[in-house]
Amino acid sequence: MTNSFDTPGSGSPSPFTQVSTNRSFGGHQKVLRHESRALGCSMNVGVYLPPQAESGRCPVLYWLSGLTCTEQNFVTKAGVQEHAARHGIIVVAPDTSPRGEGVADDPAYDLGQGAGFYVDATEAPWAKHYRMHEYVAEELPGLVEAHLPALSDRRGIFGHSMGGHGALVLALKHPGRYRSVSAFSPIVAPSRVPWGEKALGAYLGADREAWKAWDATALVREAKERLPILIDQGDADQFLTRELQPELLRAACEAAGHPLTLRMQPGYDHSYYFIASFMRDHVEHHAAALR
Amino acid sequence: MTNSFDTPGSGSPSPFTQVSTNRSFGGHQKVLRHESRALGCSMNVGVYLPPQAESGRCPVLYWLSGLTCTEQNFVTKAGVQEHAARHGIIVVAPDTSPRGEGVADDPAYDLGQGAGFYVDATEAPWAKHYRMHEYVAEELPGLVEAHLPALSDRRGIFGHSMGGHGALVLALKHPGRYRSVSAFSPIVAPSRVPWGEKALGAYLGADREAWKAWDATALVREAKERLPILIDQGDADQFLTRELQPELLRAACEAAGHPLTLRMQPGYDHSYYFIASFMRDHVEHHAAALR
Repeated sequence: MTNSFDTPGSGSPSPFTQVSTNRSFGGHQKVLRHESRALGCSMNVGVYLPPQAESGRCPVLYWLSGLTCTEQNFVTKAGVQEHAARHGIIVVAPDTSPRGEGVADDPAYDLGQGAGFYVDATEAPWAKHYRMHEYVAEELPGLVEAHLPALSDRRGIFGHSMGGHGALVLALKHPGRYRSVSAFSPIVAPSRVPWGEKALGAYLGADREAWKAWDATALVREAKERLPILIDQGDADQFLTRELQPELLRAACEAAGHPLTLRMQPGYDHSYYFIASFMRDHVEHHAAALR
Repeated sequence: MTNSFDTPGSGSPSPFTQVSTNRSFGGHQKVLRHESRALGCSMNVGVYLPPQAESGRCPVLYWLSGLTCTEQNFVTKAGVQEHAARHGIIVVAPDTSPRGEGVADDPAYDLGQGAGFYVDATEAPWAKHYRMHEYVAEELPGLVEAHLPALSDRRGIFGHSMGGHGALVLALKHPGRYRSVSAFSPIVAPSRVPWGEKALGAYLGADREAWKAWDATALVREAKERLPILIDQGDADQFLTRELQPELLRAACEAAGHPLTLRMQPGYDHSYYFIASFMRDHVEHHAAALR
């Protein structure tokens, strides 16, 4: 966290400091840090800049990670850089929640720090910092497009598990904002599964009607835009039948006429080994819409 | 560490128990554990079995990691599985030293546990357990070829930093044993650089003549086999000028007429981001000799 980081020619002082930078597949895998207004704390963000970003602006693909992750899990294990370099795409992977001493937390792994669920909390003690939706949908793209060599009209979004839920919800809530969306083993119906019931109950309160604004199976019914969804799901995933239940999204998409490609992958589990195995396909799905 | 692991049809009980298995690129990334006779302790070994191993025996590529690593660094960060799956190669990546409560250690990161240097120690307190050369060259291939779907006459070896040193030394010491060798940012002259002087002095004693049996720049002079060496080295590697000095191997290979391809890679450092960026090339180098 020693160097400020900015793209030459940007107008205002950069909000980013550089935590680390490593050359990777001809580009650079960086971790940047900045003060988030939405979250009221410092945030780490993984940023892969492909070789093409040295000579021009590139599309941006946002990645949202799952429970317990920081930005490190994705940048070290997912193998995205090879494919992002080939297609000339910037990949932005923020941490999964606000963090720090003043930020509310819970001893459980599935609530509080590391478990932001990409919502804007309304309930104490969470409402003060837990605004991951606003952060990912508004603040972070604004900073990325102002201070990195990013095109401002070409965004894609994808994620894993809790982050797959986040990617689906953000794309469905904001028609026109993303050109492409995909997910690995997403939580598709958080208002109806234990992980989601716990988190949405804590962050949003007991009124289950309010949860539907953060549930892909509910949002898809009235989506203003029919952005095709690609999902890969391992059939040996230990969370498949209790927490993930992709058939609920399949039913909702069929009822709404929303295009969905749901691929059940035999023998694969919930890990980054699964994610890496299908990363090529997902980046190609996004590249077709972004380039 | 709950299941025994063996290939159907092998003759004797398997020495391996399965610590973990994850489907990866159509094959399986496993961590196996076994009691090592050479080392006198339990050892973890990363084993990638490509899809082709389900229907026949495959060549084996051994990976040796660098200082401080366990088997996990390589199996989670190097991105080898995609390429091993494409070429039908088993990849075996052992831990970097004996470990456990009864095993000698040192507070420094570059001596003792995590820093075996792939030698057979002769000095107290190291001689009892620190026999990584015997383990990697003899015991482990014996177990792999008896209990995994491995061809017994098609071995390659590669590694990183301390493990690049190990790969070069093992290939040079054992003509005919390996069909291919390569390294990422290897320690090429351990008898002449600080990391090596410290480790070889501790493990082998003060007589510098004895160190030459573990120094690639010395071994290459009298090698009985001229197996072509591929090396990638980042020119922004923080250890380049003090610990690595690949030009010492270049000079030794030129003097001996040993084939060496040494590629200086601009801007790359010593990390797994560097390793992953050139993993495709290294696996192809080995596959050309192994398939």
